[in-house]
Amino acid sequence: MSRNDGMNYAPKGKPNKVVSENEFTFAAIALDHGHIYGMCNGLVEAGARLKWVYDPDPSKVKSFVKAFPNVLVASSEEQIMQDEEVRLIAAAAIPSKRCELGLRAMNNGKDYFTDKTPFTTLEQLEIARAKTKETGKKYMVYYSERLHVESAVFAGQLIEEGAIGRVIQVTGFGPHRLSAEIRPKWFFEKKYYGGILCDIGSHQIEQFLYFAGCKDGKVLHSKVANYNAKDYPELEDYGDATLIGDNGATNYFRVDWHTPDGLSTWRW
Amino acid sequence: MSRNDGMNYAPKGKPNKVVSENEFTFAAIALDHGHIYGMCNGLVEAGARLKWVYDPDPSKVKSFVKAFPNVLVASSEEQIMQDEEVRLIAAAAIPSKRCELGLRAMNNGKDYFTDKTPFTTLEQLEIARAKTKETGKKYMVYYSERLHVESAVFAGQLIEEGAIGRVIQVTGFGPHRLSAEIRPKWFFEKKYYGGILCDIGSHQIEQFLYFAGCKDGKVLHSKVANYNAKDYPELEDYGDATLIGDNGATNYFRVDWHTPDGLSTWRW
Repeated sequence: MSRNDGMNYAPKGKPNKVVSENEFTFAAIALDHGHIYGMCNGLVEAGARLKWVYDPDPSKVKSFVKAFPNVLVASSEEQIMQDEEVRLIAAAAIPSKRCELGLRAMNNGKDYFTDKTPFTTLEQLEIARAKTKETGKKYMVYYSERLHVESAVFAGQLIEEGAIGRVIQVTGFGPHRLSAEIRPKWFFEKKYYGGILCDIGSHQIEQFLYFAGCKDGKVLHSKVANYNAKDYPELEDYGDATLIGDNGATNYFRVDWHTPDGLSTWRW
Repeated sequence: MSRNDGMNYAPKGKPNKVVSENEFTFAAIALDHGHIYGMCNGLVEAGARLKWVYDPDPSKVKSFVKAFPNVLVASSEEQIMQDEEVRLIAAAAIPSKRCELGLRAMNNGKDYFTDKTPFTTLEQLEIARAKTKETGKKYMVYYSERLHVESAVFAGQLIEEGAIGRVIQVTGFGPHRLSAEIRPKWFFEKKYYGGILCDIGSHQIEQFLYFAGCKDGKVLHSKVANYNAKDYPELEDYGDATLIGDNGATNYFRVDWHTPDGLSTWRW
């Protein structure tokens, strides 16, 4: 993996097992985004057993098996859903399809661990919320930028310890590299990716709520633009928003697909 | 001057005379803000002759004369206004009074050079605009953060040369130290200082318009708060805003009076 390949950045940490061998079995379904690798690394490092993988695209499965040689290749999603040993489904589907997969997982008595963004519509959010109440199962989100980065975890600990006092404002910048030529088609269709504020911005909003200690927040203003991707009319290559939390803290974030190709740092 | 004394930061540059001796005479009136020192330094370095100073407070005049020993102390504003040799009035009055002093200057055939913020109401702006048209005189503003900082000037040159391409977004942060105990009373009364977005924020808006090459802009959203200065109920110690320029570039800025006392860098 090259240093500027953020899409497939899959951190490996210091193993810190929280379950004993064979205590917690999970499976990977839907490999549409490279984050699935980091998600599975983290679960395995925590002691979980990766039993199955399934994706309709054999080439994606082949790459996945290379990274996790002990995994069994399922012939259908159904095969995994019916395996009672499987307690959790890890998935990185096309954003607009993440919710329906989560519902299927919960309907089959499994917790769900999806790549961000977890939803592309408010309707999906409501349905998933109702389903978690009905089934008692979890719908958890891989916000890699905060959950899988040591310095972000440390920042959260410092805030918790009161090291910087009250957090009254959080500002977040999420520059990303477009690399349009290697993106799948769905990446440029708004009904699938959900818009830049939903896709990348969900990271920033989660960080705000967490670091400022809010339980809820309100979007006060937001804007999006397509400044430089006229070949992809449905792509928003710029977005920003400002929020206020239920404790009076405020937030501003800016996300974009304008990282220059020549820049050496990663961040797709 | 201590390193953290931004209020009285009065840069001295490499002299670059643009007028010959006695070609351009000016006077300083209203020493309410320390920026007047930087304003006069810059004019003197450009070759101008500082003839007069006037302020009703003798202690302010005394300090000023120490810095500019050749200046004559006027016994009234009127004395300066009637001196035909004086071509420009430099002034750092209480913000809400800056416009009326500017009108008097222009009415007396002099250009006006005021510390920022130049106005505290839109009505003042309209009156001053009409007066410049009527008299042909100038109402110029000392936006020190951009005009009197070499790196800011250099940034503007780089943009002009196309070094970074099209500017699509400008973000500005203006943290300041409150040092409430040494501030004058007017500093905490909103009708005088005009609100934080007007007082400090005017710097940021000017920078946006300049660096993004806009001729005009619209405020899309703004907010202010008093998070930590309950003893001063009219002080806004936090503010932010987002704008869009007439060329499609956007801006976000945040200004505050939350720089911790213990921080070694300047910025009142």
